[in-house]
Amino acid sequence: MNLIIKPSDIEKKSFSIITQELGDRTFPAGQEEVVKRVIHTTADFDYADNLCFSENAIESAKDALSHGATIITDTNMAMSGISKTILSSLGGQVCCFMADKQVADEAKTRGVTRAIVSMEHAAKLDGPLIFAIGNAPTALIRLHELIEQGVCHPALVVGVPVGFVNVVESKELFIGGNTPYIIARGRKGGSNVAAAIINALQYQLVKREGF
Amino acid sequence: MNLIIKPSDIEKKSFSIITQELGDRTFPAGQEEVVKRVIHTTADFDYADNLCFSENAIESAKDALSHGATIITDTNMAMSGISKTILSSLGGQVCCFMADKQVADEAKTRGVTRAIVSMEHAAKLDGPLIFAIGNAPTALIRLHELIEQGVCHPALVVGVPVGFVNVVESKELFIGGNTPYIIARGRKGGSNVAAAIINALQYQLVKREGF
Repeated sequence: MNLIIKPSDIEKKSFSIITQELGDRTFPAGQEEVVKRVIHTTADFDYADNLCFSENAIESAKDALSHGATIITDTNMAMSGISKTILSSLGGQVCCFMADKQVADEAKTRGVTRAIVSMEHAAKLDGPLIFAIGNAPTALIRLHELIEQGVCHPALVVGVPVGFVNVVESKELFIGGNTPYIIARGRKGGSNVAAAIINALQYQLVKREGF
Repeated sequence: MNLIIKPSDIEKKSFSIITQELGDRTFPAGQEEVVKRVIHTTADFDYADNLCFSENAIESAKDALSHGATIITDTNMAMSGISKTILSSLGGQVCCFMADKQVADEAKTRGVTRAIVSMEHAAKLDGPLIFAIGNAPTALIRLHELIEQGVCHPALVVGVPVGFVNVVESKELFIGGNTPYIIARGRKGGSNVAAAIINALQYQLVKREGF
């Protein structure tokens, strides 16, 4: 085994293999970095076809991130996978309300998912908001309602919940809409995919060490 | 959209869809739960073919978990995705050394990955050990060396790093070996897959709320 051990070299080599295997597929600037990073995270080339971008998604995300955006995730796992160093250097932060006792209590009382209550809490936050939903379709559905009601105006919705029940439909709510979005059409996605997309956007704004 | 919002109902319905789509594929008891949970986590049926189990993997894992195993991950993301409630009720815990300053310093001095140093630290831990490697092939390679040297005797190695460089080869080191293993053969895997496998094993030991 030709053991490359410098993580930045492994990443460069990986992206070179991904580029090669994508062949003559081309993507608009900004979207290409997202598609490749998701494939890097999953080793799943389906994402070259699944990922849908609103026309203004990359620009809106980069603008929000460079102005200290708050990223809201629907799992601690996605929060954990988002690189904090660059984000905080840009004045941004990431938060997840899923494990909050207040959210859990309110969800129980109302008989709804914690994901729904989390979105309602997040909608009240100040500043540019980016939602990174990799797990709960109910989060995405509630978020869409809050946007329709004018309660919330996200700079970007990353809609990549994974699964078999309500998932496909929850994503379709955003396709073609006015809110900037990056959606993984179909069943696939996940917390890792949500984190990878946010990281791919961040990395476009700074020079990373070793790259 | 027929909006089922009770998470346990969504999960039951999802598993029923997965079972249906797997058709007449059958898996040994214990392995079936793992395969289905990984598909539930990824919506990727490739894992029905990719996942390889040593003959004793499920039994060894369940025995370790019921005796308060320590689970070592190679990412904070995998650690974050592992359900802690059941684990701690069984006397177990999960840890990850990747963000430790001591590990980072030592890795820098020696010019190796933090994943390698993390495995060396983990190998010294007491009690039954389960390794859940979803990211770094260098972690899996170093772990294999430590096992060969007799320094470490894991109850289970979950070897599911994802990627394009050294990944396939690092997994093949374990196939057919004496250490109990669950390996995702090929390029696919990830922190989410590692966490899903550990959760599928835990859930076999207890009655979960709502199920």
